[in-house]
Amino acid sequence: MTLRDEICEQPAALARLLHGSAGVMAEIRAAVVDRPPKFVVIAARGTSDNAALYAQYLFAVRNGIITALATPSTITLYGARPQMAEALVIGISQSGASPDIVAVIEEARRQGALTIALTNAPESALAQAAAITVDLQAGPERAIAATKTYTTELLAVALLSTALKPATAQESADICSVPEWVAEALSVEPVAQTLASGHAQRDHSIVLARGFAYATAREWALKLQELAQVSAFPFSAADFEHGPLALAEPGLPVLVVAPAGPPLDAQRHLLERLKADLGARLLVVSNDDEALRIDEGLPIPRGVSPWLSPLVEIIPAQLYTYYLTIARGLDPEAPRTITKVTETH
Amino acid sequence: MTLRDEICEQPAALARLLHGSAGVMAEIRAAVVDRPPKFVVIAARGTSDNAALYAQYLFAVRNGIITALATPSTITLYGARPQMAEALVIGISQSGASPDIVAVIEEARRQGALTIALTNAPESALAQAAAITVDLQAGPERAIAATKTYTTELLAVALLSTALKPATAQESADICSVPEWVAEALSVEPVAQTLASGHAQRDHSIVLARGFAYATAREWALKLQELAQVSAFPFSAADFEHGPLALAEPGLPVLVVAPAGPPLDAQRHLLERLKADLGARLLVVSNDDEALRIDEGLPIPRGVSPWLSPLVEIIPAQLYTYYLTIARGLDPEAPRTITKVTETH
Repeated sequence: MTLRDEICEQPAALARLLHGSAGVMAEIRAAVVDRPPKFVVIAARGTSDNAALYAQYLFAVRNGIITALATPSTITLYGARPQMAEALVIGISQSGASPDIVAVIEEARRQGALTIALTNAPESALAQAAAITVDLQAGPERAIAATKTYTTELLAVALLSTALKPATAQESADICSVPEWVAEALSVEPVAQTLASGHAQRDHSIVLARGFAYATAREWALKLQELAQVSAFPFSAADFEHGPLALAEPGLPVLVVAPAGPPLDAQRHLLERLKADLGARLLVVSNDDEALRIDEGLPIPRGVSPWLSPLVEIIPAQLYTYYLTIARGLDPEAPRTITKVTETH
Repeated sequence: MTLRDEICEQPAALARLLHGSAGVMAEIRAAVVDRPPKFVVIAARGTSDNAALYAQYLFAVRNGIITALATPSTITLYGARPQMAEALVIGISQSGASPDIVAVIEEARRQGALTIALTNAPESALAQAAAITVDLQAGPERAIAATKTYTTELLAVALLSTALKPATAQESADICSVPEWVAEALSVEPVAQTLASGHAQRDHSIVLARGFAYATAREWALKLQELAQVSAFPFSAADFEHGPLALAEPGLPVLVVAPAGPPLDAQRHLLERLKADLGARLLVVSNDDEALRIDEGLPIPRGVSPWLSPLVEIIPAQLYTYYLTIARGLDPEAPRTITKVTETH
């Protein structure tokens, strides 16, 4: 049961990164103090691209910095040399091996930009290409589906945000609580297992969220695609209303990530409409009692700070997906077609 | 048949914008000459967000400028004030009415950024918020699904690129050929109708592309969702290999946008694998004979320049979707649940 082991290892992996990254974060703080970046560029694929999405929201809200998600093919397929000299350019990759991600970092460094790699492979091509490497210290990830490297990537992003702008005392306390919150979130396992067992026939679904939680929706959908062979597709709840809402029909499974605060407030009306008017079946991840009672619910701990909530919300989603995969008669250790390291150009 | 009329009106709408926008483009050229933007930020939703994606690729490749797609909720839900003063900030919206898009432009203008609206409603809130408005001049769009406002948005983006960096003689000739290429692309209608009639049972599919064509894949998927109630989901072919490939199974309908050049070259191996090894059923939009023969094909004109190809590729996709909607017994003029103007906050 490698995948389940790795899901359960997350509190330990997060604590390790928390306590083992003070040095590299100080190095980053020193590097940006003389030249604060005008904007951020992040190159990533798959699960790591969902961590990049979290960074896009967090850097805007907490640091007041605009983040562009890189389009690596503009460099690798078209030979573009977009100006990044005044940017902070970050590559995120568990394996550090995908050539297109490495190409973005190499080009940025050639232009003189500050480059940072977030990777679980500190000897990888990506780590060698970047000026500074944050080692995720997640330990070997043997399951094909990434879990502990995703949450450690999210934590590395949060730490990076505090390297760019110092944490308040409250924020520091929040970050230190992450391993504990994640451990508490793991206690939802029996609920996730029971719900998943009843959903074995669901071969398609929509995953909705807004704000910080949108990264969680994307990562949940990706796990459902990879592991459970569910055609699960994520939408920002706002984008969903601009067209794809036409897909809603009675019985449509809609998975929702809606922790208390803006992600829930901005979706409340849509969720009521989906349930009451359109007859969809909702499964809501939340720490708001009312949201959990709209239909089926997967609870997360109550006191989680909104800016760190994606690190916690993904836990019930991982557990639900693990048990749904088994309920659908599939092997969570051996997703078809895909391999651990994917190299795209 | 409003929707089909509007699809067929596109050559005329594009010619109108081409000849009617010289003044505003000169104004933009004058505005950026003294302060070239360090980066670009674009706020858009739905179909307009797909035009933004085209801009992200085009500005990187042709202008060497990084583009961030805005996350409006960081401003409207979290009260963020991300630094945009040195950016060019663009809002794209057919109706110009969505409050979250307007909020991004208002904040950027408050900070002193150069702001531009691309809209078909030159009196709208978005147009009033921006310093400069490019009127799409598409004429009233009555169908709920956007077609002519999408291609005019793409053309406005291409013209904007040439306002930021003058077109070569060849590029000028290319732009002037767009209405003609689009008219030629419309001649695929009988082929699209025949193929769509055979696909009425397909209620889900994957849409793949890379490079410039990725915007087309996203827009095609959105049209299939809105109109034909097909669970069609778009992927960059590179992202698809990082996980979602696990969804591939015999008989899976895979729609592909692969015009000759980088978008096709980067996908050739994947398409062969999907067809030969995984048993997927491919429908390929291309102007490459070999690509059109992999399985089923929808041809586009041969001489289209790669940087303008998205303006042409979407035509067979629109026609196919129109006839698929009818083949599935639905009314293309009345997609369920959604309305023409969507206001999100």
